[in-house]
Parts: sequence; structure tokens; C-alpha cells
Amino acid sequence: MSAADFPLIGAAAQRARAAARVLRTLPTDVKDAALTAMADALLARTDDVLTANAADVAAAAAEGTPEAILDRLRLDAARVAGVAEALRALVALPDPVGDVVRGSTLPNGLQLRQVRVPLGVIGIVYEARPNVTVDAAGLCLKSGNAALLRGSASAFRTNTALVAVLTEAAEKTGLPAGSIELLPADRASVGELLGARGLVDLVIPRGGASLIERVVRESRVPVIETGVGNCHVYVDAAADPAMAEAIVLNAKTHRVSVCNAAETLLVHRDVAFLPRLLTALADAGVTLHGDATAQAAHPAVVPATEEDWATEYLSMDMAVRVVDDLPTALEHIARWGSGHSEAIVSDSAAAIAGFTAGVDAAAVLVNASTRFTDGGEFGFGAEIGISTQKLHARGPLGLPELTSTTYVVTGSGHIR
Amino acid sequence: MSAADFPLIGAAAQRARAAARVLRTLPTDVKDAALTAMADALLARTDDVLTANAADVAAAAAEGTPEAILDRLRLDAARVAGVAEALRALVALPDPVGDVVRGSTLPNGLQLRQVRVPLGVIGIVYEARPNVTVDAAGLCLKSGNAALLRGSASAFRTNTALVAVLTEAAEKTGLPAGSIELLPADRASVGELLGARGLVDLVIPRGGASLIERVVRESRVPVIETGVGNCHVYVDAAADPAMAEAIVLNAKTHRVSVCNAAETLLVHRDVAFLPRLLTALADAGVTLHGDATAQAAHPAVVPATEEDWATEYLSMDMAVRVVDDLPTALEHIARWGSGHSEAIVSDSAAAIAGFTAGVDAAAVLVNASTRFTDGGEFGFGAEIGISTQKLHARGPLGLPELTSTTYVVTGSGHIR
Repeated sequence: MSAADFPLIGAAAQRARAAARVLRTLPTDVKDAALTAMADALLARTDDVLTANAADVAAAAAEGTPEAILDRLRLDAARVAGVAEALRALVALPDPVGDVVRGSTLPNGLQLRQVRVPLGVIGIVYEARPNVTVDAAGLCLKSGNAALLRGSASAFRTNTALVAVLTEAAEKTGLPAGSIELLPADRASVGELLGARGLVDLVIPRGGASLIERVVRESRVPVIETGVGNCHVYVDAAADPAMAEAIVLNAKTHRVSVCNAAETLLVHRDVAFLPRLLTALADAGVTLHGDATAQAAHPAVVPATEEDWATEYLSMDMAVRVVDDLPTALEHIARWGSGHSEAIVSDSAAAIAGFTAGVDAAAVLVNASTRFTDGGEFGFGAEIGISTQKLHARGPLGLPELTSTTYVVTGSGHIR
Repeated sequence: MSAADFPLIGAAAQRARAAARVLRTLPTDVKDAALTAMADALLARTDDVLTANAADVAAAAAEGTPEAILDRLRLDAARVAGVAEALRALVALPDPVGDVVRGSTLPNGLQLRQVRVPLGVIGIVYEARPNVTVDAAGLCLKSGNAALLRGSASAFRTNTALVAVLTEAAEKTGLPAGSIELLPADRASVGELLGARGLVDLVIPRGGASLIERVVRESRVPVIETGVGNCHVYVDAAADPAMAEAIVLNAKTHRVSVCNAAETLLVHRDVAFLPRLLTALADAGVTLHGDATAQAAHPAVVPATEEDWATEYLSMDMAVRVVDDLPTALEHIARWGSGHSEAIVSDSAAAIAGFTAGVDAAAVLVNASTRFTDGGEFGFGAEIGISTQKLHARGPLGLPELTSTTYVVTGSGHIR
């Protein structure tokens, strides 16, 4: 495969590959200087960005785009300052490149070191939010990778302005051209990106289930699945009532549109405070979709179908199922969960141990809200998404997760 | 997707999934007891295995299979004892499951631990060698995974006998049924395995470039590419002549059929001992395919084409190119290498640093033969292959590489 096979993205991918060969050798201070210059440039040229963004928002509004989507697309001076601040925060994070993951001197005297190296060229496919353009470019750069950014058509003017500002600042500090490339927002450019084996080292889709499904189905380039969170909170027989209520309410209602929000409540049948728990949720404005036992426990509960167990609502809805025991809860999670975040509320060490051992997910939360599954909350700094796959990286994807490793083996004429 | 969508492998995959949920919770001593019982059973029932193998070998011979392939297929008592011994060696290796990769107490008091967990169900697609059946089953079991083994049709009787012996022994020690499943050797079973998203967590192809290409193209299940090694030795201007000769000869001729054998020799144009080096290779029986400068340096060198730069010979052939400088060598490796193992012979610290920084491969060998890229040589114990991809694991795949991780987050009622 060569760049000519990819009319929409080939030239940009080729530039990114060339840039990646330089980026992988850059010392941390050069990358940090570029990040700082990029942050400064965003502040200095906020007006250019806002002008382009206003045109995008006006065009989207003219097409009848709902206000919730317009709000995700819209930038203002404060939001631009926020993404500039996020770039500065990356400067403060340690550079993973060059870290020695393991090392030893073998019995024959060979010195073995496993060293972190950048992945190379990373493609990111994402939806309306223009802040992802800046976040993804910054994370890729700090980890020594070139970024191929494929944002949505609705944000194309904004993304063009942002990338112009970022690349000009980066190149002034000595970064190679091609370090940050914005791809055309044509529908076909995603297909090219997913087929660009040998040109692109990794594609990260950031978006809904249908985008991720397409990427997994089509891609010949390695991908990391992110973001689908059908998360459960299991309230055990031995749960403290007040703690259970606080965690369930927080997991469901703190921010409903995010992947670490809870979607299904599983409650042990011996939980006597179930009616009170359901009342608290209903009072908070949550629509409850429950099985027969849940319906019997509270008049606000409407009947649930299998569809409800499968759904990532991302809204003020919650499915409720009453289970006979922990194994039934684990079966439910294994059948319907998306492997993101699963929480248990319990004072029983045995139940906690059983839940922790039995759940196969990126994160298991014990007496804590699912909302804590987050790179920032985990203390990793910025994240590019939350992986729900088992290979390479599971959970929040920070800077180390954007690297690979090389074994460097040093001898003095060693042969076998 | 459900098991019914996969007529050839669905039932086996379903059994493996059920087994995997048990395997992930088994303590190390139970897995080690099973491995020991499997080794004992292989020795006790060697005759059953050899009878089945004799039938496979006779059938393959009747079809006119070349002796080199027959030799890979053929077992004898010593080879069976060898694979039994390999199972015992796994007992001695540390169990990666449960290892805490990182852990901290966050400022808000949440306890964060990243813990190794098994991947789940691992499919392995491989060619004639029946020893892979035992090795793969053992590695998967020790790392807490269920194994779906898809060997070649020519070894089906042998593999059936081996898996019967292994599963009977494993189940007697309390391992769940489904821990080791042999899949039908029909051509279509590979396709089903590659499509069994949700049933299978990882597929590892062990075979030639065409198998690996098919797997990468078709698979909707995560894969780890292994084994294609178009490896180079770069002899720098500052190389010690005797060391260079020893390393080049070893890398090329020690065992030509393996992925860490060298295929192309790159020599700096200032290397005065090039004629002697080429004589040593020719005297060892190596057919040399070289550029014009190499041809001028030695009469045995036949002309090379681009095809030679691209070829993993796996034979007593070697391509030879004389380069003007280190950057040209790096360009050649970036263009033609498969990202497996790349070696430099040099006494120049600057050249070594430039080579190490500039090569993007699983292993970079400094003054050492490419033949050292191997799980056993690296001290990792057994390996299931050598990854040439950048994601998840790069280089020899040992037990830790057959695991994922889960973040276990423990609070006391923490909400955001």
C-alpha cells in the first residue's frame, strides 16, 4: 500500500509518517516548548478560531441542528482558554518516551532493556466537539506521535482554524511539518484511514456505538475501542442504605451523557430499602425501567424489556433489576455489560471479593461511584478516551498508553 | 452474535467462554497441578499420540508432502517427552494473574490498583507442528485463559489425540471442561474464529506471511501478528571485522528457517573487509544477492532486485546492499523491514545511538546476533510467538502478554 491508494488522506498520512520519524527522536524539552507555544498561539489567535467557529455554528443552526449538538460545537473565549490550559497541563506530565519498562543483564552478559517508544502515526476519528482537536494533537505530540485528525464535517471550519494555529506555532519551535494533520471531513476519509495499513499505526474512534462498530468491522489498522459504557451498580444485601443511595444517585445523575454514568441498577432481593432507593431516584427525575419485583416495590417503575438491559441511555433513565444473589448479578453484567465500569456497594468482604473476581471490565468500583473511571480522577492527567477492549490498554488512555516498546539488546559480539 | 452464528466453532467457543469464567478465578497451585498432570499424561500415553501421529504422517506422505514438512509433522517419544518437559517448565514460571501493575492511594482516599487478569478465550491458528498444540494449551492455561486450537488438517489426528490426553488430565485435577478445545481443521473454521467477536478475545496466528495477512484482513476479533521477520544486520564503518563476521554468519546461518534469522546485510561503504565478509558467507554456503557494489566486491554475488530486499528467504540466501551512511541504512530498514529484529555491529557510540533511536522494531540488537530475539533467550521462559505489531505486546509473547488488566477502585462511599 502506498499513499497513492488513498486519494483523500494519502498525502497527509505520508507527511505524518515522515514527521513521526523525527518526532520519535525529539527530547522532552522540545516537545514541551511546542506545547507551550501552541497554548500561547491559541490565546493570541482566539478571534480567528471564534470567527471560523461562528460560521460552523451558523451553518449547523441553518440545517436545523438541535441546540444540544450546537452547544457541543460552539466555542467561546473561555472554552478556547480551557483547551490552551489543557495543553499547558500536558507540559507538566512526565514524558513516557524513553522510560525503561524493564531491564536486566542476562547470564551470558547481554544487556536487555525494554524501552518505551512512540507508536508512530495515530488517527483519531471524532464527532462535533472541537476541543478534541486540540486535546488529541497535544496528547499525540507529548507522546512523540504524529496526529491524523478526522473531525466532523460540521466543525470543519473550526478545526481548520485550530490546526492552522497549532501547526504554525509548533513548526516555529522546530517541530516537523506533518506532526498535526487535519483530514478532509468527507465520509470516505474514514474508510481510507481504516484501510491505511502501513501508513497509520493506530486509530482511536471517539464517538457513539455505531462509529465504533464501523471502525471495528472495517479497520485493517489496529484500533482501540473507547467509550461505550453500559455500567451497572450492584447493591448487595449487605449494603449500607445511605451509602447505596448516594452512590447510585451520583453514578446515575451527576452527568448523564458520559460513558462512566450508570445505566442499570442491580439490587439484591434482600435489600429492604429498595422502595426508598427507588423513591430517591424518581425524586431526582430519573425514569425507572424495572422488572416485576422493582415494579412491585415502587409505583413509578415502568416495565423493562431486554432492550433496557442492553441500552446505554445517556439520559435520566435507569433500568432496575432485582436479583436473587451475587452470581445472578455477575451473569447479568457478563451478558449485558460493555466492560467499562461496574460498581458494588456492600459491607461484605466475601461479596466484594466475589464481585471483584467475577467482573471482567476495565474498572471495578467498590463502594465508589462509576463516575471515578476517568484519567483525571485516577491521577493520570489528560486522557484521550477510555478503552473498553482488553488488548494494549484497558481503562483511561493516558500518555503511556500512546506508546509501544522496543527491546534494546546490547552485547559485545554475542552469537548463539 | 451468538454461538449459533458459528456452526463449526460456536459450541466449542461457548464451552471455552464458560471455562474462562472459572479459569480466571483459579489459584496458581490448581493451574500448576493441571500442568503437571498434563505432562505426566503425555508421557503415560505417548503410544496413543504416536499411533495417531503415524497415521497423519502416512497420509501426508501418500499425498506427496515434502520430507521437510513431514519432519515438522512427525513426533517420536523424545519429541513428546520434550513437550511434556515444556509444560513442567511453565509450572516454574511466575503466574502473572493477580500481579498489581500499579497502585496508589489517591488524594481523596480512593485506593487504586491496576491488576493483571486473564484475557479470556484465546484462539491460536497454526500450521503443521503438533508441539504447538501442547505449548499453546499450556501457556493459555497458566495465564488463566481458555484455548481454542485450530491446527492444520494434516495434523488433525495427532492434535485430537494430544487434546484428548491433555483435557482428560486437566479435568481430573479440577479444571473446567472447555479449557482446551480443538477446533475442526476445515478451511472455514478459521473464518468463523476471526468473526467470533464477543466469543473470542484474541486470535494469534502462527504461520507464514499469507496466513497472517488473511488474519489481519478478515479479523473482527483482536489479533496479534507474529513471526514475519525480514531482519537486517548493519555493519557500520566502525565495526570490528572479526565481530562483524561472527555476528553476520550466526544471524544468517545458525538456523535459517526461523523468524529471527537475518535476511539482508547492509554494509557501510567504508568497510574495507567487505570482500572477506562475503567470502565467509559464500564459504558457509550462503547464496548472496547484492547490489552493484557488492557484486564488484565478490564474484559469488548475483544481482539483487527489489524483490530481494522484500523477501524473508528462510533459506541459505542473503541480500547484500552497500550504503553510503547510517541514514541510508535506516531508510532501507524503514522501507523493507518487518519490524522484528534489526542489528548493528559498530564500535562507534554515535552510530549505535543513531541506529537505536532510528530503528522502529520489536528488537534492536547492538553487537549481538538477531538470533537472540526469543522468549527463552530473553529469560521470559516459554513464548507463544514473537509479536511484530506495536499494540499490546511487541517482541516475545510470554505469560504476562497473555493477560489484560482491571482497575480495582476501592472507596468508602466515594461520590463525585
